[in-house]
Parts: sequence; structure tokens; C-alpha cells
Amino acid sequence: MKFLHTADWHIGKKLNGFDLLEEQEYAFKQILTLAKEEDVDGVIIAGDLYDRAIPPIEAIKAFDGMLERLNIIEKLPIYAISGNHDGANRLNFANQWMAENHLFLHTKLEEAFQPIEIEGIQLFLLPFFDPIDARIYYGVEDVEEMKTINHAMARVVKDLEKKFDPNKKQVLVTHFNVTGKKNPDYKLTSETTSTVGGLNSVSAEHFNKFHYVALGHLHLWQASPDEHIRYSGSPVKFNTKEAKNEKGVYIVELSEEGTIYLKFHKIKPNKDLIVLKGSFEELISEAFYTQQPTKGSAFFSIKLTSRSCDSHIRQKLSDIYGDIVELTYHLPSIELTEMDKKFKVRTSRSIEEVVENFYADVTCGDSLTKSQKKIVEDIVLTLNKKENNQ
Amino acid sequence: MKFLHTADWHIGKKLNGFDLLEEQEYAFKQILTLAKEEDVDGVIIAGDLYDRAIPPIEAIKAFDGMLERLNIIEKLPIYAISGNHDGANRLNFANQWMAENHLFLHTKLEEAFQPIEIEGIQLFLLPFFDPIDARIYYGVEDVEEMKTINHAMARVVKDLEKKFDPNKKQVLVTHFNVTGKKNPDYKLTSETTSTVGGLNSVSAEHFNKFHYVALGHLHLWQASPDEHIRYSGSPVKFNTKEAKNEKGVYIVELSEEGTIYLKFHKIKPNKDLIVLKGSFEELISEAFYTQQPTKGSAFFSIKLTSRSCDSHIRQKLSDIYGDIVELTYHLPSIELTEMDKKFKVRTSRSIEEVVENFYADVTCGDSLTKSQKKIVEDIVLTLNKKENNQ
Repeated sequence: MKFLHTADWHIGKKLNGFDLLEEQEYAFKQILTLAKEEDVDGVIIAGDLYDRAIPPIEAIKAFDGMLERLNIIEKLPIYAISGNHDGANRLNFANQWMAENHLFLHTKLEEAFQPIEIEGIQLFLLPFFDPIDARIYYGVEDVEEMKTINHAMARVVKDLEKKFDPNKKQVLVTHFNVTGKKNPDYKLTSETTSTVGGLNSVSAEHFNKFHYVALGHLHLWQASPDEHIRYSGSPVKFNTKEAKNEKGVYIVELSEEGTIYLKFHKIKPNKDLIVLKGSFEELISEAFYTQQPTKGSAFFSIKLTSRSCDSHIRQKLSDIYGDIVELTYHLPSIELTEMDKKFKVRTSRSIEEVVENFYADVTCGDSLTKSQKKIVEDIVLTLNKKENNQ
Repeated sequence: MKFLHTADWHIGKKLNGFDLLEEQEYAFKQILTLAKEEDVDGVIIAGDLYDRAIPPIEAIKAFDGMLERLNIIEKLPIYAISGNHDGANRLNFANQWMAENHLFLHTKLEEAFQPIEIEGIQLFLLPFFDPIDARIYYGVEDVEEMKTINHAMARVVKDLEKKFDPNKKQVLVTHFNVTGKKNPDYKLTSETTSTVGGLNSVSAEHFNKFHYVALGHLHLWQASPDEHIRYSGSPVKFNTKEAKNEKGVYIVELSEEGTIYLKFHKIKPNKDLIVLKGSFEELISEAFYTQQPTKGSAFFSIKLTSRSCDSHIRQKLSDIYGDIVELTYHLPSIELTEMDKKFKVRTSRSIEEVVENFYADVTCGDSLTKSQKKIVEDIVLTLNKKENNQ
């Protein structure tokens, strides 16, 4: 049996206000082509189908269209689950009609325990859940008894294993932060801030008895916790931390003996996400920008390495590069030390002097007008009075 | 061919904060039973399935469950459209998978032109649309050319008629305020305030060539514009204006010769909506309330016919009647005339006197305290000053 394993589509996600729908559509078409070329027996989508619980209408239309092309037009079975970004209850609508056409979309913990039986394989679709969902499902009233996701997962997996058919191979599809021997210290987590190995992570050991575990949640395939427990990563770069990482999907083949053959297939971006670092002067120099992708052909994240007194920085950079999804300052530490010294000098001056110097600094040399000086003096006077009254 | 015609389920609707989901579920069960007993060939739901574009999760679950029982468990075909309350684009999700199981749910104007062909019948599912939707669909740029819904409907129906198969009978399912010879002055409209016969209403004449038109929008079946153009009404009472009207659904049978056999089947409420009118004293008298449905067995709308100085009116009425969905004053006109006279007397008095009398009236006889009087005097003084300064 041969599957295409993908995850974290996050349909509807924007990158600092820039729409990624075209990018997602471009990635989807490659997934569709690959699934057909490889003649897979099904497509696994391991959660975070949408970017949020109530997705915008455009996202719903786009996602509906993608499922239609895979499942109705190409007759490819789909094995999908909801992730932490999805609204499980809304996504659940009409899933019984989809199941009749071999589109399985599980959004509730209780749905995980009935495996989908296909030729030689049992597919368990375990959607993202919180410990509280498991406590409700198992009727556990004492929080301490099932406090973390690891406690809950131990119980869940035990019940999944009860359904194991020894004549079949078992595949699990799930959506968590899973840590194992290959990624014990993996710091490049998903968009969430949860620390790997902490209360929110699940130990890969739970999944030892599965032949293959198709994970979603972490956006980088490199974060996979074990040989047979894999993240496919997202098909699209969703933030600048992911800019340098290749994106793609896995083609997973399970032989009758239980051997896994894995191949990672790259997904090319339409508009790539490029990080540029340099001074403003460098970035607007022809020698530099002619070396970069042309305007409109990429999203740019720009890190300025020095301050500039040009008052149209963003405009001038946009004119050259087009879609600037991020513009930040990354001042070298040497300059900060200089500032630090300046600050120490300033503290021996009067407040009025400090304000005047600060104003000159941020405006690249302007002086306070007479009326501005008056305002500063009045404020200092009032503050001094208050201090004396205390 | 035999259909059950219902409409305006408004799943998720609340009656002044009171949840109607149980009531809707109770009505649904009767619809399901009737559809089975009558052995219908399909169930028509003529719009306003939900009460709003983004329904609460509980409403989605409930509606999904109802469709499942009709269509997946009982294998009954469903012919449904979206109404003005539905979010057409959200509701559209997964409708292709549903259609494979003979659950047709049309939410877009363009879907209306492809009739559903069943034995001897063409079913046209025309969802609610605005004139602007039609202008976009037809590429009409000049608003004047297709300004009202009547203009748009003329064009739409002309195109529907082009699809007519002379060997078949035509049934239309739609959701508008339709006026005809039977309801030219019908004032009991739906929850909307649109005036019948105005810009927002559609002339029944457009639909002359259809054998049967299953309408939704107006909540009373009595508002039907013609013999073969019927509103089923809502299966549940949604506001006090509907309290005295029976609710139900139609069983429609079309013979091969094109004769229509219609039967209205009542739907019983679980908790009925009862309007009570009387003075507070009457309503709390045992002689009166023992004649009413017992507490908890109905929703009550209470119209008080005189003012009372009891400061726990709502509490005392709730203790007797339970769920009070509405509490309003309906003072007889004689009393208003009395008040009117009083007002005329008052205008010859000073502002302070008027305030004092008003205070006594609303508090059932209390006088202003010394400090309250002082406040009134200060306000009058300030107002007079301002007036003099102008």
C-alpha cells in the first residue's frame, strides 16, 4: 500500500496580511500531480487543514475545491484529521457523506477507535485533542489522574492497540508535538511556543507498535522523532523561520512484510519567501538587488542591520522588492554597546537635555522647536512638583 | 411522485434568549415519522435551514444529525436550498459529497439552472438571491436594468423554462416573499419587515408554468399566494405573532397527469407558545393560572394590561409560569387618554413639579428626597442659564 503523507495546509493563513491562498493552491497542484503519478492508494492529511476554527469563506471554497479534485474527480481516498488550528465541531459537518466516498475526516477523539480497514492495513485517525477531552471521554473526574497529554495518550494508545488485527499492519495519523530519539532537543517547533519535551509534548515511545505514524503539527519534516514516526511538514513556508527549509510531502510504501519505503518529494514555491539582511544603503543598491529574485516573484523578509534616517524606507524597499512581509531591525551588538555608553553619559545630564538628544537621534538631527521645548519643561516641572509633594 | 414540503427550520434560533433546539428536535421527529409513514419520494426544505450565516456549534451538530437521519439512515432524498438567513458559501461546503447520496443542497443562483431529474419530474432548486447576485451572474452592469428582485426573477425564470422537458412536470423550490391572488394584502409576513407587494416581493405570476412551487420565507402556510404556490410555514413557532397559528408541513403528490394532491399535516409543539393578557393581579390569581398550561410545559408571552407597583413582577410571574419569553405592557387606550390629560395639566406647571409628579408616578407614590430635589433644581438652573445665554 502506498500513501501520500502531507499535513499543515493551514488554508486561509495570511503571512503578516499577505494572502497565501495562491501559494497554497500552487502547492496543492503539485501534491495532486504527485499522487496521480505515484498512483497512491490514498492521501493522508495529518491535521491543521484550515488556519482557524471559523475560516473565511475564501478558505472554505478553496479547501472544498481541493478535496473535490482529489476525492471526487480523481477518486483518491483521503484520510484526514483535525489539528489544533481546526474547529473540530464545524469541520465535522457532512463527514458521513464524505466517508461514503472514502473521504475520512475524523475530528473527535471517539472516532479514533474505529480503524479504517483497507487491504492489509488498519488506519487509525486520531485527531488533535486536549487532556480535558480525554478526561471527558474516559469519565475521569480527577484532573491529576490524567493531567498531561502523555497521560492521556498512554490510555488512548492502549485502547487503539486493543483493535490491532495481527494479520494487518497499523498506520496512525495524528497531530501533536512528538519527541523521540531523533529530535530530543528539537527546538524548531511549529508556530506554537510550546517547548519540546515539556508538558505539551508526547513521547514517541507510545507509538512503537505502529508500523508508520503520519504526523502533523511541526512544520518541518526535519523535526521527525523517529524513522517510522514522521512529520511531512507543511507544503508552504508559513513564516520566516521556515524560509530556508525545503518543503514537501512523503510517499510512504508499506510492504506486506511491514517494511517501510519512504521518499520525500519537494514542493516548489511559486513565490518563495526570501530573507534579506543588510543596511538600507546596501539593499537599495543596484549591485545588490539585481542579484535577488525580481519584484513580484517572491515574498521578502528584510532585516536592516543599521539605522537609516531616510523617511521612506518601507516605500523605497517596496518599490524595489514588491511584497515585503516583514521589515525588522537587527542592529549589531557593537552599535548597541555604543548606545549603551551614550546612555550612561546622558544620565548625568538634565532631563531636558536627554529629551533633546533623543529627539535629535530619532529625527536624524532635528532640534526641538520653541513650543516643543516649552512642553518638555512644563512636564519636567510638573513631575518635580509631584515628587516634592510625596 | 410524493414529496414532503417543509421550510424555515431556523436551527439555532433563540426566542428572546430561550433555546428552541429541543422544540426543533421535537418537530423534526414528527417530520421524520410522517415522511416514513407517507413513504415520500423526497423531502423538500425550502430555505432558512439555519438561523444565521455562522451558526453556533450546537446548531451545526443538530442540523447535521437531522440530515443524517433523513438521508443516510432512512435513505430519503433531500431537496434543499439556502434562504436569506443562511450563509450560502459556508453551507455549500461538502455539498458534492451529499449530492452523491441524493442530498441536494443548492446555495448559489448558478446551481438553479441544472434541474434534478427524477421519475417524470424536473426539480429546480433556486436558492434565495439578491438582485445584485443576478446582476453579477448575468453580467448586467447597469443597476437600472435589473434593479428589483422582480426584474431579476423574470430573467431567471425565463432561463429555467428553457430547461423544461415537455414530457415531465416541473417543481420549483425557492425562498422569497411571493405575492399572488390569494395573498395580495397578506400582512403576516416572516420575521423580516419587508412589506408585501413592495420592492422586495416577487410576483407569483412568474411561476405560472410550474406545476408546484414549494416556498420558504413566510412562516405561516396561510400566506400562500396561490393553490399551486405554497408556503409550508415553519414547523415551530418562532415569535408571539405566530403563537395562535398552527404549524405543519405539506405532503404534495403529483399525478402523471399533473394533478396536485395537497395535504397539510400539523406539527405539535412540545412546549407551546402561549400569549396571556391581563392585569398583574389577574395573572397571579389562582383562579386564572390554574386554567393555563403548567409551569415548564409552555413558553409564555405575557402582556400586562395595567401598571402595577409591585417591584417583583417578573419574578412572581416566573414563579408561576416558568419560561416567560416576553413581558410587555399593553395599556388600554382609555388610560393613555387619562395620561394625556394629566400631561396637558402638567405642562402648565413648573419643571420641578413635573419631575416630582413623574417620580411619584413611576415609584407608586414616593417623594423626591431633599438631595434629589437639589439636583433637579441645579439642572433647571443650569438649563435656564444656557437658554438665556443663547
